[in-house]
Amino acid sequence: MISNRQKKQYTLSELTQGLDVTIKGDPNCLISGVTTIQQGKHGTLSFLMNPLYKKYLATTEASAVILAPTLAENCPTNAIISRDPYYTYAKIATFFEQRPVQPIGIHPTVVVGQDCIIDPTASIGPHCVIGNGVKIAAHVVIGPNCSIGDETEIDEQTRLDAGVNIYHQVKIGKRAQLFSGVVVGSDGFGIAKHGGVWHKVPQLGRVIIGDDVDLGANTTIDRGAIEDTVIERDVKIDNLVQVGHNVRIGEHTAIAGCVGIAGSATIGKNCLIGGAAGIGGHISLADNVMIVGMSGITKTIREPGMYAAGVAGIQEITEWKKASARYHRLEQLMERVATLESLIAELTEDRKSTR
Amino acid sequence: MISNRQKKQYTLSELTQGLDVTIKGDPNCLISGVTTIQQGKHGTLSFLMNPLYKKYLATTEASAVILAPTLAENCPTNAIISRDPYYTYAKIATFFEQRPVQPIGIHPTVVVGQDCIIDPTASIGPHCVIGNGVKIAAHVVIGPNCSIGDETEIDEQTRLDAGVNIYHQVKIGKRAQLFSGVVVGSDGFGIAKHGGVWHKVPQLGRVIIGDDVDLGANTTIDRGAIEDTVIERDVKIDNLVQVGHNVRIGEHTAIAGCVGIAGSATIGKNCLIGGAAGIGGHISLADNVMIVGMSGITKTIREPGMYAAGVAGIQEITEWKKASARYHRLEQLMERVATLESLIAELTEDRKSTR
Amino acid sequence: MISNRQKKQYTLSELTQGLDVTIKGDPNCLISGVTTIQQGKHGTLSFLMNPLYKKYLATTEASAVILAPTLAENCPTNAIISRDPYYTYAKIATFFEQRPVQPIGIHPTVVVGQDCIIDPTASIGPHCVIGNGVKIAAHVVIGPNCSIGDETEIDEQTRLDAGVNIYHQVKIGKRAQLFSGVVVGSDGFGIAKHGGVWHKVPQLGRVIIGDDVDLGANTTIDRGAIEDTVIERDVKIDNLVQVGHNVRIGEHTAIAGCVGIAGSATIGKNCLIGGAAGIGGHISLADNVMIVGMSGITKTIREPGMYAAGVAGIQEITEWKKASARYHRLEQLMERVATLESLIAELTEDRKSTR
Repeated sequence: MISNRQKKQYTLSELTQGLDVTIKGDPNCLISGVTTIQQGKHGTLSFLMNPLYKKYLATTEASAVILAPTLAENCPTNAIISRDPYYTYAKIATFFEQRPVQPIGIHPTVVVGQDCIIDPTASIGPHCVIGNGVKIAAHVVIGPNCSIGDETEIDEQTRLDAGVNIYHQVKIGKRAQLFSGVVVGSDGFGIAKHGGVWHKVPQLGRVIIGDDVDLGANTTIDRGAIEDTVIERDVKIDNLVQVGHNVRIGEHTAIAGCVGIAGSATIGKNCLIGGAAGIGGHISLADNVMIVGMSGITKTIREPGMYAAGVAGIQEITEWKKASARYHRLEQLMERVATLESLIAELTEDRKSTR
Repeated sequence: MISNRQKKQYTLSELTQGLDVTIKGDPNCLISGVTTIQQGKHGTLSFLMNPLYKKYLATTEASAVILAPTLAENCPTNAIISRDPYYTYAKIATFFEQRPVQPIGIHPTVVVGQDCIIDPTASIGPHCVIGNGVKIAAHVVIGPNCSIGDETEIDEQTRLDAGVNIYHQVKIGKRAQLFSGVVVGSDGFGIAKHGGVWHKVPQLGRVIIGDDVDLGANTTIDRGAIEDTVIERDVKIDNLVQVGHNVRIGEHTAIAGCVGIAGSATIGKNCLIGGAAGIGGHISLADNVMIVGMSGITKTIREPGMYAAGVAGIQEITEWKKASARYHRLEQLMERVATLESLIAELTEDRKSTR
Repeated sequence: MISNRQKKQYTLSELTQGLDVTIKGDPNCLISGVTTIQQGKHGTLSFLMNPLYKKYLATTEASAVILAPTLAENCPTNAIISRDPYYTYAKIATFFEQRPVQPIGIHPTVVVGQDCIIDPTASIGPHCVIGNGVKIAAHVVIGPNCSIGDETEIDEQTRLDAGVNIYHQVKIGKRAQLFSGVVVGSDGFGIAKHGGVWHKVPQLGRVIIGDDVDLGANTTIDRGAIEDTVIERDVKIDNLVQVGHNVRIGEHTAIAGCVGIAGSATIGKNCLIGGAAGIGGHISLADNVMIVGMSGITKTIREPGMYAAGVAGIQEITEWKKASARYHRLEQLMERVATLESLIAELTEDRKSTR
């Protein structure tokens, strides 16, 4: 059942209680939902953070807008003035959230192994399969059709959505959230060619996932080869991300969709990895490194900062082909310049001597 | 059970009935299956569309070939002459298709929530889990091990294959086809850093999927943050594609495998997005835009046409490294050219004055 | 239950029996596990292959190290000298592997279709769904929540982990290993636009997977359009890889994570495809081709060797933008060089005439 079914109304005062913000306008203004600033409607609250959307402020029909102090003057309606409008929005939006609630307890269709310790406040959905020696702590919610391997431990309030597969001996912290299709603990890609044939390298490590980690839909985290693969606390990972064996990701790092992190890479704390970037094997990123989306990072980065690889810029196809062709003729260009340099040197020498 | 088990034979006349084509040769020629042009065998039908394969026409052993009028003369066997050979092939090939058929009704192992409306002609496979308030229309087929979240609606004749996970409050149109491992409606990647820690931004929107949409295996579609994520009708999406929150994809657009579309991007109608391309957040593509595979598109494109990013062309590794090194020395090259320009100017000036 | 629970100890002699190695030091040294060279502890065995880790050799506390003959002299502890240390490690590490064991037989929650032939030594986990006419050979292990389509055949000792979905009429060889979330046999991306609308092209081929093939977590393999998609024996594929319809991958080829292979591509034997590379449709790679990660390969490669696409090298963001801007001004640079060339020619001509 979807929780919180009645559409409630709240005053701006109620919504902002405890938040470090100032209300400009009517604190008793009633809000019944949130909208984008361009779609703002009477009775709704919006927010403005991305400068791309500033143009919509003057004409928004939202009854209130969360925005930065510098924009308050231009706000044609009630304003919630915040130094961090997106965070303020995040907090207020929870008033309007409706999430399905799965009943507490183990659904009768669940298959549970031996020697498991499952807290009575946990909720395990239909058709899950729980291995042997599994520990599931208080208020954990596991959606339908999940599998949990032997000796895996899931700590308090963590939520696995439908169709998540966790292998054996994985540890997941508190309040983590694993979206549908996530796979944790599959073997790392360890193969050794010998005699012309691939031989499997046993993957003996585990996966350790810290508190407050999010793993997006269909993301895969391989178990370590020898040591563990470690995702530290408060790491946020989007959909369809691949994390190879032995990787360590530092706390508070966020990784956008479609990123691939090759084996034994180490990513620092508070990093931001843009979508579809690739991080090479056995390299390290320092703390506070930002990587532009689609960049292939093949060398260790020791200093905080923002980095990219490849060539930026989109082009119409004909121009793109021409530019690529020019790139592939760079050597000839360099040779032409060198020729020019020696000709000029000759001419200059000549001029001197003829003077 | 696989339907249509008997290997039937059809005449060219039967196969082309109702199609806007001309038969050259024997309309009573019997066809029992389709083959590629290079593997063509007696009694089979092939087609020729991609010019790469034209070389096989002269020697094909197929009993008939579907091809364009310009190629009919070179066809050594019976020809089905069509202005759109691939479309003609698509229609004819359905005669030889054999798909497993899942029995109508709800399998006894399915767990169904409260207040669901499930049409009696729908088929729901073993071990599915259906939430509360779900609506499933006529002739919908849901494969084994799927989960459908609360208040989700699936319209007529739509097919979900095994292991598809749909979250709550998703709407899926008619005749859509979701392949195994698809996830629809997981939370968008909305996080706000405050006090050094990530805070979740509630994802309050839904996902709306139009009629005749295909979603390939293990593709993920996030729900909207405030407004809905919308996939309009007749959009075709291949495998392992990530669609972020608030994205809107216009009708008749096709998206190849491994593409990532970041949040709040808008893609027009009749677009073609090549494999593993990346579309940045908050940008728009006009209608009729084609994107070359693996391009990272980071700016809005307002005009129809074909676009790419990066540098085209493969190179042997040594040459690739040299070319990249040259690229990274472009600044020095530009400086050398500037130096040459001033030297030349000097010499030219000098020449004038000495005349 | 996890197999092999007791932590056993083995002497170096026992561990190396049958391997083509030399022990330097004490062959009776007892080993109870494996560690990385930097984390080496007393009683454990480590290995040294990647030169990046050579610096840790002098100070490792491991009781023995597997290494190449050239490094044996610098080894401060017992050494297992091998011409292929990684392979030797792979073989020895199996002594310390602990894998969950799923009981033989068909779990009572499994739904099995008609006319299946399932070997009594096979193990089929809870909540699996097996179609009609499926053949499952001896010692096959199928994890929980898998689905196997009609008329699919799985040969001896192959292992499917939890949540694998196999479509109909797929053939999988012996000793293959399919990790969680793998999808095999979904329809290829065959669509034909006609009258402004997409028409489905029936996908009539199968997927044939050879012996000893590995498919990583959430990897997808499409069925062929007409002919089959073929993964030859001993091909190793990592996580989140997409293999399009009609693709053929030659034996002993290894493909890293996040790779996309477009339809009708042919990849030779003994190739290595780096992570997140893209292989274009309808092209071929010769045997023994290596592709650098993240390269987009759009042309047939006929000669063995190592190839890449794009521009190598990471840059700090400001320098990256400048370099990209220089790239986009290459035409102007070329024009400037051409101008210089004609000016120089003029000056040189002039000099000659004035002599």
